[in-house]
Amino acid sequence: MPPSNMTIDGARLLGDLYRLREFGTFKTGVHRPTFSEVDMQSRHWLMERMREAGLEPEIDGIGNVIGRGRGDGPRLLLGSHLETQNEAGWLDGALGVMYGLEVARALGGGIDVVAWADEEGHYGSFLGSRSGIGLLTEADIDAASNRYHGKSLRAALKEAGLANRPRFTVDGNSYRGYLEAHIEQGDALEAAGLKIGVVTSIVGIWQYRVNFAGVQNHAGTTRMAIRKDAGVALVKFATEVERLFPTLCGPRSVWTVGRITLDPGAASIVPGGAEMLLQFRDADMAVLKRLEATLEDITARANKSGPCAVTLTNLSRSIPSVMDASFQAALDRAAERHAPGLHQRMPSGAGHDAQWLARVMPAAMLFVPSIGGISHHWSENTADEDIVLGAQVLAEAAADILAR
Amino acid sequence: MPPSNMTIDGARLLGDLYRLREFGTFKTGVHRPTFSEVDMQSRHWLMERMREAGLEPEIDGIGNVIGRGRGDGPRLLLGSHLETQNEAGWLDGALGVMYGLEVARALGGGIDVVAWADEEGHYGSFLGSRSGIGLLTEADIDAASNRYHGKSLRAALKEAGLANRPRFTVDGNSYRGYLEAHIEQGDALEAAGLKIGVVTSIVGIWQYRVNFAGVQNHAGTTRMAIRKDAGVALVKFATEVERLFPTLCGPRSVWTVGRITLDPGAASIVPGGAEMLLQFRDADMAVLKRLEATLEDITARANKSGPCAVTLTNLSRSIPSVMDASFQAALDRAAERHAPGLHQRMPSGAGHDAQWLARVMPAAMLFVPSIGGISHHWSENTADEDIVLGAQVLAEAAADILAR
Repeated sequence: MPPSNMTIDGARLLGDLYRLREFGTFKTGVHRPTFSEVDMQSRHWLMERMREAGLEPEIDGIGNVIGRGRGDGPRLLLGSHLETQNEAGWLDGALGVMYGLEVARALGGGIDVVAWADEEGHYGSFLGSRSGIGLLTEADIDAASNRYHGKSLRAALKEAGLANRPRFTVDGNSYRGYLEAHIEQGDALEAAGLKIGVVTSIVGIWQYRVNFAGVQNHAGTTRMAIRKDAGVALVKFATEVERLFPTLCGPRSVWTVGRITLDPGAASIVPGGAEMLLQFRDADMAVLKRLEATLEDITARANKSGPCAVTLTNLSRSIPSVMDASFQAALDRAAERHAPGLHQRMPSGAGHDAQWLARVMPAAMLFVPSIGGISHHWSENTADEDIVLGAQVLAEAAADILAR
Repeated sequence: MPPSNMTIDGARLLGDLYRLREFGTFKTGVHRPTFSEVDMQSRHWLMERMREAGLEPEIDGIGNVIGRGRGDGPRLLLGSHLETQNEAGWLDGALGVMYGLEVARALGGGIDVVAWADEEGHYGSFLGSRSGIGLLTEADIDAASNRYHGKSLRAALKEAGLANRPRFTVDGNSYRGYLEAHIEQGDALEAAGLKIGVVTSIVGIWQYRVNFAGVQNHAGTTRMAIRKDAGVALVKFATEVERLFPTLCGPRSVWTVGRITLDPGAASIVPGGAEMLLQFRDADMAVLKRLEATLEDITARANKSGPCAVTLTNLSRSIPSVMDASFQAALDRAAERHAPGLHQRMPSGAGHDAQWLARVMPAAMLFVPSIGGISHHWSENTADEDIVLGAQVLAEAAADILAR
């Protein structure tokens, strides 16, 4: 059992989170893009806090910050990320890093704390955690640029003063495992009146681009019978997805058409081209494969019936990541002690650094409720008492895991 | 009957059209936006040709060019426009102006020739022909700007040297009427193996913006059951249009969704907003009203069923314009004489300057075939012999009308 007298300092934790919010305050949220001036200031501020907590801080060549505890006993790695989406919330990422620091302070040893760079993908996809497990090559860095303003990652690293630093990788054998706390970003906990989510798995995200090739023509003089309207073909395709996916998906599947463009996109021109971005997510590989087969089938039928040519292109397939069973059990026990009956197991519908760490060591995640299920928006929030409760649960689970 | 020995000079006509194509050549087509340098050069070149043909040319304060014939007998006004869509065809507009000039030369009197400015709408909607019938106010000019690069119409007029010129209006009582020839821009003539179309009416164009208001959210953590996905609402709306319009439209109705946007338009964000531009066209007011009522019904049902709020906004409603019956008969007779059995009556699915002139004088239009039905594209074309045939038919119909 965890030491019953071990408690985190809720006021200290909240104070740190409030201070961290000042780096790039935007309304009640934060605008702290990766490698921006405020982002780098927040990383150096974190290193100061780590030093105060008795950890040895290091920042590496991709911007990852790690604070290593002293001593030779069993160790856990705790953390998340510091940067935010543009004009986004104050807790997404920040919560998990500051939980790590608070747990390190509360336990007094056995905890290393990490802030992975660019989880939010301003320059790539999980640059920091991929680097931290040895999966990011120098060529990957050469090729990366900012998705919003196009600056090369190399230039950004140079401006941030990181160009000549080595990159560290974590040795899975030197840790019992990795724990990451995060806001839920959905409304499942709030809707059920619960306080803690214990993550069973992180979903796989499969993304596609669907292109429709028709014939551009005059919207007044081209008879309906001879049109090859790429926009109409796109609408039909999307309608088939909405008709079939609900009959084939799992209970937690989600799918989204996030972008639609018609070419040339003018009121009086029959669109000659159209494109949609479509993605779906599930924790079950069988469901992911079934949904992909459905897309392939819709595409084949559309090409058979015409009049537009449809091309389905897979953009990415991430593999669902299963969380460690014994860690989940430890989180369950800690949650039951501090929030009896107010916790549940659940998959994570969002991607997290933990999915990469799970490749080299046991990993698990804890969720706290998001008010209104809102995230990636400046109004994102979690009640202070829920923030403190989550940290207490994480600390006890960490102590439990280290004590075994 | 028309004078049987009156013939147009096909080589002279084609030579003028080839020369005109050199003002802004783009591949086999033309890029000659309204008030661009090449556009103004083409207007001054036209004035030179008018002068050679014995007409008195004038360019006015909106860029309209008119060449007035001498003499006091009955008069017809013939013309179309000179500027093109961006990177578009060499005949759209140019054909009708050069037909006018050739008919003036062939008949030797009774013909005024006009080139209306900006039919293609770079700065507005039918600026030139609306000005020419007294429907364009100075306030309209103050408010207009270029739809592609935003330059104000006032600035463009100043750069084109037109700022201080008066604008002319045509007096309907001083003309027997207005004749405009144009490429068909569709494939109806070609598909039927015909050479001449006699336009019965110019369709009304009714345009709408449809907005969908949902809730933007995370595409991984937001359960399908609670989503208010504006993109899904848009797809449902468009599907209803495609389901219902074919059961309610007329035989020549056309409808088009030319633009779709999702907001914010990112792969991993459930769209909180969506917008489509939708238009339909028909020559029958009853059909236009029926289709509008259908849109209102789809909107009401979508708002009743939810989860997104749908707003239907009318952007414009142009009234179908009926062509003069006796002019149609004159065009029929001339067509039957030179292309026996190879002509038909048909509505115009595109808008034309003639729809505005029809408000102040009898008006009619003649179509020649478009190869492949293509227009508003640099590959737009019509066979040389069809171009010459169309001019001969127009000349004889004009002589016929003037002789009555």
